[in-house]
Amino acid sequence: MKSDLDGLMQTKKLDAILVIGNATHNPPMYYLTGGGHVSAAILIKKRGETAVLFCNDMEREEAAKSGLKIVPMSTYPWQDMLKEANGDVALMSAMRLQQMFADCGITSGQVGIYGDTDISSTLATLTSLQRIAPEIVITGEPRDNSLFMYAMETKDDYEVARIRRMGKITTTVVGRVADFLTNCEIREDEVLLRENGAPLTIADVKSSIDLWLAELGAENPEGTIFSIGRDAGIPHSVGTPTDLLRLGQTIVFDIYPCEAGGGYFYDFTRTWSLGYANPEAQKLHDEVKAVFDKVQENLDLNAPFKDYHRMVCEEFEKNGHTTPLNTQAPVDGYVHTLGHGVGLNVHERPWSGLTVGDDNILKPGVVMTSEPGLYYPEKGFGVRIEDTFWVRPDGKVEILAEYPYDFVLEMKKWKKA
Amino acid sequence: MKSDLDGLMQTKKLDAILVIGNATHNPPMYYLTGGGHVSAAILIKKRGETAVLFCNDMEREEAAKSGLKIVPMSTYPWQDMLKEANGDVALMSAMRLQQMFADCGITSGQVGIYGDTDISSTLATLTSLQRIAPEIVITGEPRDNSLFMYAMETKDDYEVARIRRMGKITTTVVGRVADFLTNCEIREDEVLLRENGAPLTIADVKSSIDLWLAELGAENPEGTIFSIGRDAGIPHSVGTPTDLLRLGQTIVFDIYPCEAGGGYFYDFTRTWSLGYANPEAQKLHDEVKAVFDKVQENLDLNAPFKDYHRMVCEEFEKNGHTTPLNTQAPVDGYVHTLGHGVGLNVHERPWSGLTVGDDNILKPGVVMTSEPGLYYPEKGFGVRIEDTFWVRPDGKVEILAEYPYDFVLEMKKWKKA
Repeated sequence: MKSDLDGLMQTKKLDAILVIGNATHNPPMYYLTGGGHVSAAILIKKRGETAVLFCNDMEREEAAKSGLKIVPMSTYPWQDMLKEANGDVALMSAMRLQQMFADCGITSGQVGIYGDTDISSTLATLTSLQRIAPEIVITGEPRDNSLFMYAMETKDDYEVARIRRMGKITTTVVGRVADFLTNCEIREDEVLLRENGAPLTIADVKSSIDLWLAELGAENPEGTIFSIGRDAGIPHSVGTPTDLLRLGQTIVFDIYPCEAGGGYFYDFTRTWSLGYANPEAQKLHDEVKAVFDKVQENLDLNAPFKDYHRMVCEEFEKNGHTTPLNTQAPVDGYVHTLGHGVGLNVHERPWSGLTVGDDNILKPGVVMTSEPGLYYPEKGFGVRIEDTFWVRPDGKVEILAEYPYDFVLEMKKWKKA
Repeated sequence: MKSDLDGLMQTKKLDAILVIGNATHNPPMYYLTGGGHVSAAILIKKRGETAVLFCNDMEREEAAKSGLKIVPMSTYPWQDMLKEANGDVALMSAMRLQQMFADCGITSGQVGIYGDTDISSTLATLTSLQRIAPEIVITGEPRDNSLFMYAMETKDDYEVARIRRMGKITTTVVGRVADFLTNCEIREDEVLLRENGAPLTIADVKSSIDLWLAELGAENPEGTIFSIGRDAGIPHSVGTPTDLLRLGQTIVFDIYPCEAGGGYFYDFTRTWSLGYANPEAQKLHDEVKAVFDKVQENLDLNAPFKDYHRMVCEEFEKNGHTTPLNTQAPVDGYVHTLGHGVGLNVHERPWSGLTVGDDNILKPGVVMTSEPGLYYPEKGFGVRIEDTFWVRPDGKVEILAEYPYDFVLEMKKWKKA
């Protein structure tokens, strides 16, 4: 949680942090500012002190909504500084940054840098800063276990409420997609038809998904997976836009939208077969569902997340599938890890891979996915089932948005001959 | 254009470029790959050679759509490398990057780095790389005049067609907003009402805008400005969600959406007053429109963009406004520059500020905005008019999407007493 930041900074031996970039679609900046139309901002937080947000003068009122201490950029007259720097923009940015640090009481020490931003200009600035202020040491760290990944790992009630709301939006959209598909007319060759009689494509379905998400106040900056047949057997194939929807083919529908404006995510997957199912695909779905249920029944407060991933590997191996436990980088069978945390990042701590640190546990406040899957692209199918769970302070683990697990969706205007 | 990249690399003394991050919402990577669901990829292009795209194995089919040479990440077994690096993730990433460079024939030289990405983990990797491969020098450069800003500055016909299509979508949405507003019922106190009789808020209007954009295949990752009254007088205020729509108040509507999935942008602004106008605001609108027209009439092939900005300053100064020409960082009057290029970035070269380089000219293939404005927040209004223009190869300059410039929008269900 946010209140853990100072303690985490101490553990990581950081005297201050520097966060850069926009407030939206930039998790560390969003986390500290609450989003808003604040672009190309600079935030400096000395350990134990309140963060200071340096922002464009034109965005000062937007920035003030963050509740942080706001300093307008005009405090540092860049035109004069640029003259002083002989027109060297990177040097001017470094001089300005040095001054901002000084104004926050920082003239030396270890400073962690965070934010999604333009790497090129940032590196140019940091290279100049190193030259003019070598006693300020700016350091990065690998993302998966960075300061913010640790802080964000546990959510407060307000954050959980927002993720739950996104879960409601997500399952509402999934329900609309199911209704829409099952009400389609079917051509003789089992292709679904649009109202105008044209065959229904993956692109059509995706454009309805985008529309419904926007209508409900969400967006999908990372896209949506809606893939059929062989594509469904490739976990990260998002689907081929021109593919037609057909009865009896496996559809993997993985939807991971966030609040409009770039806030909290939800992550959810169902696998469907319209009208009827290939018996082999049905068997695969039964297997995945059984493992999904077994994981859910066993989820326990403070248990290591990777224990459940190992459990899934072992269950699948009993049925003869390759998994990360018996094969390095398998390409079919169970080819990914069980899940991940969900918050301002669609993927964040805790992690569940076999080799992750022992501190990836189901602490109170964790929000994470369970998403076992089995993939056989050459057979023309794949199955994944995913819900997002919350580890409650009372130790119970609940799904944040319930939705049925049916594999075969009954078609309203078609009956099996 | 893309074909300029090798020449520009030579000018900038770069032996290679390294582009990192996702393919969407990351202009340099989108530019070279064409977008697609390719996340956390690494692209290396040696000068004079075709780019190589290193991607997650699970995204290999998506990556192949780029037409580039694809190398799956599994070529570099990270688990073995991580052992070799004693668990140091940043060092492992650096070792892998060094190997990728070697496989592209690069063991030394100057390498420019580009992309919007997580600064923290990237800096950690680069710091390790510097240690293990000091003969490869990775350099950044200030964004405004970077390699990609120069390459992207001129568009080919395919790019212009895509921006024009976004212009059509943008003006369609603007037209729907105008229709919607002018058909509202009006309360006694001149507040607009929704169909259900509740007062219409800025948030309501914005959610309709988002919906219509999604429906037409666009998104607005940077938001939309729809601000009324005093907010309209603050150029980058995006509007207060709970503000009510009222007759006779100035509305600044600045909309800058991009293709769904994070492609080309359009940029467009109109200023409206519903039903009737404050005479002072009307006068301001007339002034801005006259200057807008004067700029448009004078746009000339290969002219310096900043000459038009200076022209606008001079025109406005004649009428007693403060401008960047007579005041450093003015807070009312004309407070920004005339315009900017538009493409995969909503703001890109050419630039129009008074101090920009002389090479910011209206070359054939440039797509840029003209957006003069005047702002008086304390008087409760501001005015901006903006269109996006294309400098055609034949030297003519055309607006990519036409739309009327009316300030007062006539209300269908209301008449001035």
